[in-house]
Amino acid sequence: MFSIIAEDKLTRARVGLLKTAHGTAETPFFMPVATKGAVKFVTSEMLKEMQVQALISNAFLLSLNPGVEIIEKVGGLQRFMGFDGVCFTDCGGFQLSRKTFNPEHKEDGLVFKDPFFGGKVHLTPEKIMEIQIRLGSDVAMGLDDMPNYKEPRQRYIDSLTRTHQWMEQCKKAHDQLKKKYNSTQLLFGITQGGTLADLRKESCEFMKKLDFDGFAIGGLGMGEPSEERLETVKVATDILPSGKPRYLMGIGSPLDLLESIAMGADIFDSAFPTANARHSTMFTSKGVLHLKNAEFKDDPNPLDENCSCFVCQNYSRAYLRFLSKTHDPVNYIYKSYHNLYFLSDLLQKARQAIKKGLFTEFLEAFRKVYARK
Amino acid sequence: MFSIIAEDKLTRARVGLLKTAHGTAETPFFMPVATKGAVKFVTSEMLKEMQVQALISNAFLLSLNPGVEIIEKVGGLQRFMGFDGVCFTDCGGFQLSRKTFNPEHKEDGLVFKDPFFGGKVHLTPEKIMEIQIRLGSDVAMGLDDMPNYKEPRQRYIDSLTRTHQWMEQCKKAHDQLKKKYNSTQLLFGITQGGTLADLRKESCEFMKKLDFDGFAIGGLGMGEPSEERLETVKVATDILPSGKPRYLMGIGSPLDLLESIAMGADIFDSAFPTANARHSTMFTSKGVLHLKNAEFKDDPNPLDENCSCFVCQNYSRAYLRFLSKTHDPVNYIYKSYHNLYFLSDLLQKARQAIKKGLFTEFLEAFRKVYARK
Repeated sequence: MFSIIAEDKLTRARVGLLKTAHGTAETPFFMPVATKGAVKFVTSEMLKEMQVQALISNAFLLSLNPGVEIIEKVGGLQRFMGFDGVCFTDCGGFQLSRKTFNPEHKEDGLVFKDPFFGGKVHLTPEKIMEIQIRLGSDVAMGLDDMPNYKEPRQRYIDSLTRTHQWMEQCKKAHDQLKKKYNSTQLLFGITQGGTLADLRKESCEFMKKLDFDGFAIGGLGMGEPSEERLETVKVATDILPSGKPRYLMGIGSPLDLLESIAMGADIFDSAFPTANARHSTMFTSKGVLHLKNAEFKDDPNPLDENCSCFVCQNYSRAYLRFLSKTHDPVNYIYKSYHNLYFLSDLLQKARQAIKKGLFTEFLEAFRKVYARK
Repeated sequence: MFSIIAEDKLTRARVGLLKTAHGTAETPFFMPVATKGAVKFVTSEMLKEMQVQALISNAFLLSLNPGVEIIEKVGGLQRFMGFDGVCFTDCGGFQLSRKTFNPEHKEDGLVFKDPFFGGKVHLTPEKIMEIQIRLGSDVAMGLDDMPNYKEPRQRYIDSLTRTHQWMEQCKKAHDQLKKKYNSTQLLFGITQGGTLADLRKESCEFMKKLDFDGFAIGGLGMGEPSEERLETVKVATDILPSGKPRYLMGIGSPLDLLESIAMGADIFDSAFPTANARHSTMFTSKGVLHLKNAEFKDDPNPLDENCSCFVCQNYSRAYLRFLSKTHDPVNYIYKSYHNLYFLSDLLQKARQAIKKGLFTEFLEAFRKVYARK
């Protein structure tokens, strides 16, 4: 299911192969988010073009709309979305922590407001496992309780207790459901504990005793400083088994990805690249480019002269800035495509650098031109 | 510039080659509208994929934003939009007839409200010719005055007088500007007269005396019944020189296109296919499909089983309906793509049918499955 094919000597970076029911993805990789069954403004043909290996959807939201039955009838999540690669599904811990869902903790799970049709939905670890198995994703995530950044310590302690209990229930239910549905779906556990080293450590120690197919470092990407986050990743990768993939959830800025890879993280997801793109904050090999700046209004150059994506091959900064200013819908397509392509390309180069034993040089060179965001 | 390579024996349909500075387009063809420099939700890569030969932009709007200088600096309209095919530009008569522009007729042209930056803009035939030459489009359109459907007869008479005067000025100015800018841009004249046969006839008789590179039948697609419009097209093609291309402006429903081709029209443009797509009204080989209908909610079939576009190859009606219901941005991409692909494919098949002497059969077969909209 996971095998490491190259390891960096100076950092914790490694290249691995994650084998799933719908193909093998080479780590480290970044997953665009298709929360509600599609990546905003990016077609699945485009994802293929930019060699995106995997994406992640929200199982809970999809179970409410369009519902598991419809996705089953069409032939499962990959077929439904027209995406050939590896599909992860999340329980929706991140989305559900938002106030619009009005979450209430119950003894056996959570009660939420249905954002599509109103009314209340009762979610348990067992239910969300069955939803994910039936959706047919390649990798399911356990149910976690995710605090926001800088909540009181007691909130993190409570989240740990709850998350650990739910993860045990998820593992047990998933083992049974795999037999029932004859599924080869993988299951990842999620560690919590915010950036509090002792709690994160406790969570990783607890989780590694459960035989998950991979482990996530959850609850980050919530506004904490990068240094604090990297320290937490280090705490986690000290403990989590090196032979299993490590998924750092919610991180998507180029430099953060490379530095997390150096700390031993393998898998990433975030809406950051596409959300930034929609706001005209573009990733380039020379650093971040703010396309709205007046200096680009008649600039005939591409977003990034070193980028081989179709946007950089065909369009000038002047054109893209003009389309952004007039809010033409295609501007969101072009900008989202470029930022996702940039990350896909960056991680491919990172994998090559690790394989060649040149990752530190690669990271250093990138740090010089790319300020952290 | 224009040569006819096949003519149907039973109808006025013909296949021609329109040679321009940026390549040759085979008529009859349909142009997606890139009014403000882009087709809504469709990239220029997609236009290439679906073998769109030509598109049309609005020279007047582009001259206001981003301005002619910026487009010149980037290398002209085709380079600016990243579109390899033939570019038409319109003066914007259609858009300018709308109340938001608050148009006032002056002796030497029109005064409009600038929709982007406020203030008033003074437009003359000479100015709009220079704008189009400088934008570098392949085919420029003369400046016309377009009444709405069912206005009083006097309004059509006035429009004819004004349009004819402006077209003479356009032709004269364009001849001079072509020398000044060393341009090979083509210029089409536009006939007016609504669906009033005597006025349309008068307009065509007048226009054909001016040596335009092609002739447009303007002022239609404004809500008139199809029969009335086809009758008008017939009046026009009776008079307009058969050796020049005939451009029926503002028409884009599949059956209307084929029936207009049978009446001798060669070139078309309309926002109809993409606007319909955004409202989930889909063109298929079995007729119009209203994707919002509940019957499609768990339908695993493609929009059109006979369509080879990537949308029909990859996505189910269930998925596309779901994305439409959740207003996911990609739903507009997929639906716009399919409708434009459908028209591109339909007109390619029409050209083949004309070449093979089977156009009447092709039209009859299509009429049987495709109700007029």
